[in-house]
Amino acid sequence: MKLLEDADCLSFLDIGPLAEGHLLLVPKQHYEWLDQMPAEHVARLAQHLPRLGRALVRAVRCQGYNVLQNNGRVAGQAVGHVHFHVIPRVAGDGLGYRWPAGQYAEGRAESVYKSLLAHLT
Amino acid sequence: MKLLEDADCLSFLDIGPLAEGHLLLVPKQHYEWLDQMPAEHVARLAQHLPRLGRALVRAVRCQGYNVLQNNGRVAGQAVGHVHFHVIPRVAGDGLGYRWPAGQYAEGRAESVYKSLLAHLT
Repeated sequence: MKLLEDADCLSFLDIGPLAEGHLLLVPKQHYEWLDQMPAEHVARLAQHLPRLGRALVRAVRCQGYNVLQNNGRVAGQAVGHVHFHVIPRVAGDGLGYRWPAGQYAEGRAESVYKSLLAHLT
Repeated sequence: MKLLEDADCLSFLDIGPLAEGHLLLVPKQHYEWLDQMPAEHVARLAQHLPRLGRALVRAVRCQGYNVLQNNGRVAGQAVGHVHFHVIPRVAGDGLGYRWPAGQYAEGRAESVYKSLLAHLT
């Protein structure tokens, strides 16, 4: 049940949905993790997200939606091919990302920041 | 603590992190929901995700990461300006998306599919 397709991308309904209308957007070319994709290919994939989000809100009359893309088994990636989930949300659906937000210890944010900058080549 | 910046986008550390290195990628122009953004602007924003993901894996030595973008309060959006979270993951961190996957009742997937197609204008 193909929702959209172009030269690089495909979108279809998730057959094990978290909510009705839960859909997937995938590149045709194989990549396991998002960071293995060339930037321009991610751009061509992600450009479809607003249109899919709009259609979802209208089609299932949800009150919001999550866009989720998991990299690695530890991150919940069950299929080793890059895919974006678009998950419709309504109040009280029991879905969502766990959010035990923390804080950096004194000086730790600066240290992480420097390390990230050093790897942003 | 700016990680990257171009004409349209900005990335920086989340100051209330779910894990060390949790970062945000945002458009400079104001949009509340992703589906309010022009497709080409989402493309210009998302093209930075692979580079950020790569840097994160190297900087904090995580085993995976989630890319998450919430639309609507009910979807966990706390700030009314589009932002992509990039959240590092390690085994046993207690993070992740709740995943009570279901199934469509007989004929229901086709009905949702047709409704989505009708709204994918």
